[in-house]
Amino acid sequence: MDNATLVAIASIITAGLTIALGSIGPALGEGRAVATALSSLAQQPDAATTITRTLFVGLAMIESIAIYCFVVSMILIFANPFWNHMISQASGK
Amino acid sequence: MDNATLVAIASIITAGLTIALGSIGPALGEGRAVATALSSLAQQPDAATTITRTLFVGLAMIESIAIYCFVVSMILIFANPFWNHMISQASGK
Amino acid sequence: MDNATLVAIASIITAGLTIALGSIGPALGEGRAVATALSSLAQQPDAATTITRTLFVGLAMIESIAIYCFVVSMILIFANPFWNHMISQASGK
Amino acid sequence: MDNATLVAIASIITAGLTIALGSIGPALGEGRAVATALSSLAQQPDAATTITRTLFVGLAMIESIAIYCFVVSMILIFANPFWNHMISQASGK
Amino acid sequence: MDNATLVAIASIITAGLTIALGSIGPALGEGRAVATALSSLAQQPDAATTITRTLFVGLAMIESIAIYCFVVSMILIFANPFWNHMISQASGK
Amino acid sequence: MDNATLVAIASIITAGLTIALGSIGPALGEGRAVATALSSLAQQPDAATTITRTLFVGLAMIESIAIYCFVVSMILIFANPFWNHMISQASGK
Amino acid sequence: MDNATLVAIASIITAGLTIALGSIGPALGEGRAVATALSSLAQQPDAATTITRTLFVGLAMIESIAIYCFVVSMILIFANPFWNHMISQASGK
Amino acid sequence: MDNATLVAIASIITAGLTIALGSIGPALGEGRAVATALSSLAQQPDAATTITRTLFVGLAMIESIAIYCFVVSMILIFANPFWNHMISQASGK
Amino acid sequence: MDNATLVAIASIITAGLTIALGSIGPALGEGRAVATALSSLAQQPDAATTITRTLFVGLAMIESIAIYCFVVSMILIFANPFWNHMISQASGK
Amino acid sequence: MDNATLVAIASIITAGLTIALGSIGPALGEGRAVATALSSLAQQPDAATTITRTLFVGLAMIESIAIYCFVVSMILIFANPFWNHMISQASGK
Amino acid sequence: MDNATLVAIASIITAGLTIALGSIGPALGEGRAVATALSSLAQQPDAATTITRTLFVGLAMIESIAIYCFVVSMILIFANPFWNHMISQASGK
Amino acid sequence: MDNATLVAIASIITAGLTIALGSIGPALGEGRAVATALSSLAQQPDAATTITRTLFVGLAMIESIAIYCFVVSMILIFANPFWNHMISQASGK
Amino acid sequence: MDNATLVAIASIITAGLTIALGSIGPALGEGRAVATALSSLAQQPDAATTITRTLFVGLAMIESIAIYCFVVSMILIFANPFWNHMISQASGK
Amino acid sequence: MDNATLVAIASIITAGLTIALGSIGPALGEGRAVATALSSLAQQPDAATTITRTLFVGLAMIESIAIYCFVVSMILIFANPFWNHMISQASGK
Repeated sequence: MDNATLVAIASIITAGLTIALGSIGPALGEGRAVATALSSLAQQPDAATTITRTLFVGLAMIESIAIYCFVVSMILIFANPFWNHMISQASGK
Repeated sequence: MDNATLVAIASIITAGLTIALGSIGPALGEGRAVATALSSLAQQPDAATTITRTLFVGLAMIESIAIYCFVVSMILIFANPFWNHMISQASGK
Repeated sequence: MDNATLVAIASIITAGLTIALGSIGPALGEGRAVATALSSLAQQPDAATTITRTLFVGLAMIESIAIYCFVVSMILIFANPFWNHMISQASGK
Repeated sequence: MDNATLVAIASIITAGLTIALGSIGPALGEGRAVATALSSLAQQPDAATTITRTLFVGLAMIESIAIYCFVVSMILIFANPFWNHMISQASGK
Repeated sequence: MDNATLVAIASIITAGLTIALGSIGPALGEGRAVATALSSLAQQPDAATTITRTLFVGLAMIESIAIYCFVVSMILIFANPFWNHMISQASGK
Repeated sequence: MDNATLVAIASIITAGLTIALGSIGPALGEGRAVATALSSLAQQPDAATTITRTLFVGLAMIESIAIYCFVVSMILIFANPFWNHMISQASGK
Repeated sequence: MDNATLVAIASIITAGLTIALGSIGPALGEGRAVATALSSLAQQPDAATTITRTLFVGLAMIESIAIYCFVVSMILIFANPFWNHMISQASGK
Repeated sequence: MDNATLVAIASIITAGLTIALGSIGPALGEGRAVATALSSLAQQPDAATTITRTLFVGLAMIESIAIYCFVVSMILIFANPFWNHMISQASGK
Repeated sequence: MDNATLVAIASIITAGLTIALGSIGPALGEGRAVATALSSLAQQPDAATTITRTLFVGLAMIESIAIYCFVVSMILIFANPFWNHMISQASGK
Repeated sequence: MDNATLVAIASIITAGLTIALGSIGPALGEGRAVATALSSLAQQPDAATTITRTLFVGLAMIESIAIYCFVVSMILIFANPFWNHMISQASGK
Repeated sequence: MDNATLVAIASIITAGLTIALGSIGPALGEGRAVATALSSLAQQPDAATTITRTLFVGLAMIESIAIYCFVVSMILIFANPFWNHMISQASGK
Repeated sequence: MDNATLVAIASIITAGLTIALGSIGPALGEGRAVATALSSLAQQPDAATTITRTLFVGLAMIESIAIYCFVVSMILIFANPFWNHMISQASGK
Repeated sequence: MDNATLVAIASIITAGLTIALGSIGPALGEGRAVATALSSLAQQPDAATTITRTLFVGLAMIESIAIYCFVVSMILIFANPFWNHMISQASGK
Repeated sequence: MDNATLVAIASIITAGLTIALGSIGPALGEGRAVATALSSLAQQPDAATTITRTLFVGLAMIESIAIYCFVVSMILIFANPFWNHMISQASGK
């Protein structure tokens, strides 16, 4: 059963690091976008509608990158094909 | 029982590092967003409503990335499927 | 079956790191593009159509780089030719 | 009893590193937010109420990220499920 | 068959890291180019045609560098001459 | 008694690193906050009361993060549950 | 046949890292050149011909550096003299 | 007596690194605070009393973080509970 | 024949890293030079001849550094004196 | 006598690194403080007394951090309690 | 003959890294010098003679540093005294 | 005599690294202080006496940090108490 | 003869790294000095004599640091006292 | 004779790294000082005497730090007390 343990450890460590490292870029990017949106609002309050709409589209695209990482992290924990293969083999053995 | 120990150690280290590394990006991003909100408020106090609303939406999206990390960290400690598998196997052995 | 385990571990770790590291560049790049779009909108609201269109084309090209990483990550988890070779050999053995 | 020792060591090291690394981001983010609040106050003393309120909401959200790290660190020291499992097993052995 | 496994592991890890590391430079470069294009458009809307055309030529050249990395990554997964050699030898043995 | 020694070493190293690494963020953050407070005072001496009060609230929140690290460091040296467990076991053995 | 495997692994890893690391510099350099070209066009639309020509000469020289890396990467995969020597020796053995 | 030696080595290395790493943040933070104080004094000599007082309060709080590190470093050298335990055990043995 | 393999591996890895690392500096340097040339052209179109000539001399000198790296990389692959010595010894053995 | 040697080596290395790493922060901080003092003197020569006095207080506090490191370094070389314990034990043995 | 192989490997790796690392500084330095020369030419076309002459003297001095690295790299490949000693000993043996 | 050799090696390496690493901070700090002194002199030649005096006091304090490192480095080479102990023991043995 | 080989390898690697790492600082420093000289010439062509003379004195002092590295590198290759000792011992053996 | 070899290797590597790492700080610091001197000369040619004198004093102090590193490097190669001890012991053996 050693093989399954190794796969489990690799999955645990990778799942954590994926979302941890993958959160740095999107969080900084969103922080920058929100910050500029706020200073733009202060500078040109009349364009609030256009600015807010463009901000939300942009945040959605940046958030999508963070969600790619979250999805890979969840797949590695709850729907890991390598782990399933190991378990099915171990039980069928 | 060595396998379970290894999985436990990997889970402990990963859980800690996930939230530790995952807090850097969101904290810096939120700091930047709040900072710009404050200087925007000082520059254009009349737009306070729009600025505050946009700030809270932005903070919510950045905080959501930190919460992804916290969720993965909690799953690894309290609802770890690999650990549960190990324990159920060890007890059933 | 040790070989298959090693391939599985390498695939898991690489899949996670690929999307984790690959998210940093695109997220920062998109954050910068969105931020400049917002300040440009505040500066020249009349050019909103041109700015928004150019922004979306640019975001699409940057997102495409993130998607290259996501595709490689998914291939390594669900359509890994090396893993398939290992499994087919192990079962045919 | 070697297993319990390994889990203890991993818990000690991770608990320390979690709060140590997790303090960098929030501290820098809060420092930035406070700094901008102060220069905004100097620039627009009349908006002191709005600025202070927004600052405290922002600090609370950034502090919450630091507290996630502190909570994980405390859980690893005082309510570690893996350690409890090890101890209960060792005592029941 | 150990040799083939080692080649497979090296190919998997390298394929992932190639596109992951190779995405940082182009994504940041494109983000910068798009950002300047947007602020140039806001500054000189009359030159939109020239700016957009130059932007697309530039993005194409930067994207080509990302595509070099993607091509090497795909070659390592699906058309790896070293892996083919290993497999043909193993089957002919 | 080797187990206790290992736990002691891990506690010593972690206690030191926790406060050492944990001091970087808060010290830089407080330095920034104090610096801005001083230049704000020079710019708007009339708002000295508000600025000083906001500065102290901010410093308190940033210092609290440094104190989290100090608390964890002290717990690891003087109230370490894992060490106590080891000692009680060794003496009861 | 172990020697050939080692050469194959070194070639795979080096080929990937060469183009991955080698893409960072040129991509950032081209991004900077394109960005300045765009802001120069916005500032002086009359000099569009000279600017565009100089930009293309510059991009060609920077791209040539990326192509050096791509060429070395392709040589290592498809025309590797060390691998050919190993294979010819192994077959002639 | 090997255990005591290991604890001694860990204490020595950690004591040094704690104060070495822990000095970077406070020194930079104080340098920044002092620098801004000086330029504020040059800009607004009339507010010298307020600026100097605020500076000293701020320096005291930043210095306190450096002193946390110094205290932990001194505890590890001169009042190390783990070392005392080892010595008392070795002498009582 | 192990010695020749080791020399081959070292040559492969070094050849790739030499051009990969050696491309970072020249690419960034050329990007900066081209960027300034473009903004200088926009600022002073009359001096286009002098600027372009000086740019090309400068690019040639920076490119020469990249070519040093490429030459060393090619020497290590195709005209490696250490490899030739190994091969001639192995064949003469 | 191996234990004493190990303690000696750890003391030597730590003593050097402590003062080496501990000199970076204070030196940069003092450099910054002196630099601002000089430009403040040039800007407001009349406030020379206040500026010089504040500078010396600030330098004293930053220097004190460097001296903490120097003290720890000297203690480790000339008044190391762990080394003294080892020596007294070795001689009393 | 193992000794000669080790010397050969060390020479290959060092020769590549020397010119690779040694190209970063000069390339960036020359890029900066050329960039300033261009913007100076645009600002003061009348001083073109003095600027160009000073630029070439400066580039020559910076290039000389890159050439030191290239010379050491060539010496290590083609005129390595340690390798010659090894070969002469091996042949005279 | 192995113990003395190990102590000698540790002393050599530490002595070199101490002064090498310890020179970075002071050199940069002094460079900054001198640079500001020069621009202050150019801005306010009348205050040359005060500026030069303050500069020399500041340089002396920064140089003192570099001298701490040099002193520790010299102690480790020429007055190393651990080495003397080893030598006296070896000769008295 | 193993000892001589080890000394040779250490000398080769150190000689290369010394000049490679030692070229970064001087090259960047000279690039900065030359760049400022050029922009100063453009700003004040009348002071060309003083500027050029000061530039050459400065470049000479910075180049001297690079030459220290080159000298150490050459000593390690061609006048290495440790290598000479090894060779003379080996031949006299 | 193994001990002497180890001391020789440590001396070689440390001598090279000491001057290599120790050249980065002084070279950058001198580059900055020279650069500011040049721009100060261009700004205030009348103060050339004071500026040049202050520059030379400053360069002398920064160069002295580089010379500390060079001296330690030379001591380690040509007047190494540990090496002399080893040699005298080996010859007297």
